[in-house]
Amino acid sequence: MPFELYVDSLFTSPYAMSAFVALTEKGLPFTVKTVDLEAGQQKHSAYTARALTARVPALIEGDFVLTESTAITEYLEESFPAPEYIALYPKDRRQRAQARQVQAWLRSDLLPVRAERDTETVFFGKASQPLTAAGQAAADKLIHAASQLVQEGRPNLFDSWSLADVDLALMLNRLILNGDEVPQKLKDYATGQWRRPSIQQWLERHQPG
Amino acid sequence: MPFELYVDSLFTSPYAMSAFVALTEKGLPFTVKTVDLEAGQQKHSAYTARALTARVPALIEGDFVLTESTAITEYLEESFPAPEYIALYPKDRRQRAQARQVQAWLRSDLLPVRAERDTETVFFGKASQPLTAAGQAAADKLIHAASQLVQEGRPNLFDSWSLADVDLALMLNRLILNGDEVPQKLKDYATGQWRRPSIQQWLERHQPG
Ligand SMILES: [Ca+2]
Ligand SMILES: [Ca+2]
Ligand SMILES: [Ca+2]
Ligand SMILES: [Ca+2]
Repeated sequence: MPFELYVDSLFTSPYAMSAFVALTEKGLPFTVKTVDLEAGQQKHSAYTARALTARVPALIEGDFVLTESTAITEYLEESFPAPEYIALYPKDRRQRAQARQVQAWLRSDLLPVRAERDTETVFFGKASQPLTAAGQAAADKLIHAASQLVQEGRPNLFDSWSLADVDLALMLNRLILNGDEVPQKLKDYATGQWRRPSIQQWLERHQPG
Repeated sequence: MPFELYVDSLFTSPYAMSAFVALTEKGLPFTVKTVDLEAGQQKHSAYTARALTARVPALIEGDFVLTESTAITEYLEESFPAPEYIALYPKDRRQRAQARQVQAWLRSDLLPVRAERDTETVFFGKASQPLTAAGQAAADKLIHAASQLVQEGRPNLFDSWSLADVDLALMLNRLILNGDEVPQKLKDYATGQWRRPSIQQWLERHQPG
């Protein structure tokens, strides 16, 4: 049975993007459904009756409904494992742990960057104000950690591509695509990641027709 | 080599508690080290040079340092798997996905509950103000989802105990131990979980001697 993936109707959720990329990379057939967050559709009972956390993304597989992007992508990885399918997480146990570290961190920290550089600035080029002191402090923390993770001339964080690359590139692009100061090594890394066909397929959703 | 686990010096971090419970349940030898968050020790280079995200908990295994509680507990689960060691996550693939869903959700949503019912109210009985409208709305969302997850008369969310039980019980106790209104079914569930020896060992850290 093909999957359904619920995403926000503006295609701005980085977590929906991560799940979309996961399904696309695995080569699984899926239908995209949208939830109009501005209209509050995620709080309507038609959605909440199925989606426990009333957030996007949600993965539908028959009667099984799963929210939270990392729960979805771990589930897809376990259900459609390498080598038959592309790996979403590193094979090495410690690298896999570090990839999960990056994903968990980007979802629970750096709130000022996420608020002051919301993804409409990434996907639509929406104008933004200069970073506040709190925003700059969070940007500095992001850049400091990313500079340790990203190795000059290496396209991916780990031995092979993983979803941590997708999530980190998105977070860096909040700054880069706004013209905020970011070291060249990190710009090169994010630019390279952004060319990935599965991400380009997500971006194309913004330009129908 | 025994593990080291860095936690906050007041033992109030629910994420540090989750990692502490994981190591304790697995029966692994480990030493607890503390970071004084009020004094800003987590930002000192002695800590940040090792701990990528400058947060607690951090797990140290020789030269390998890992932050973010779910990355730590997934790593422990993979390194010390069932049946030789107790399982931290459900065996069934979909139940395991749902446990991860709960963990990811509790770390990234319900901010007003986390802010207005900080864990000092859980661990030290610190007095708190009535919930604001935003706090009550988040509490209602928590109760609504938890009521779907918790089954009357069943001690755990899934077929066997998992870390999702630890995290959900902690979140519910933010309300219960403050005297906020919570359905009896959820009170019974959280009270049962709280008796678990590994959680009691964490609580005893607050009362040395
Ligand atoms: Ca809309
Ligand atoms: Ca700008
Ligand atoms: Ca202190
Ligand atoms: Ca109270």
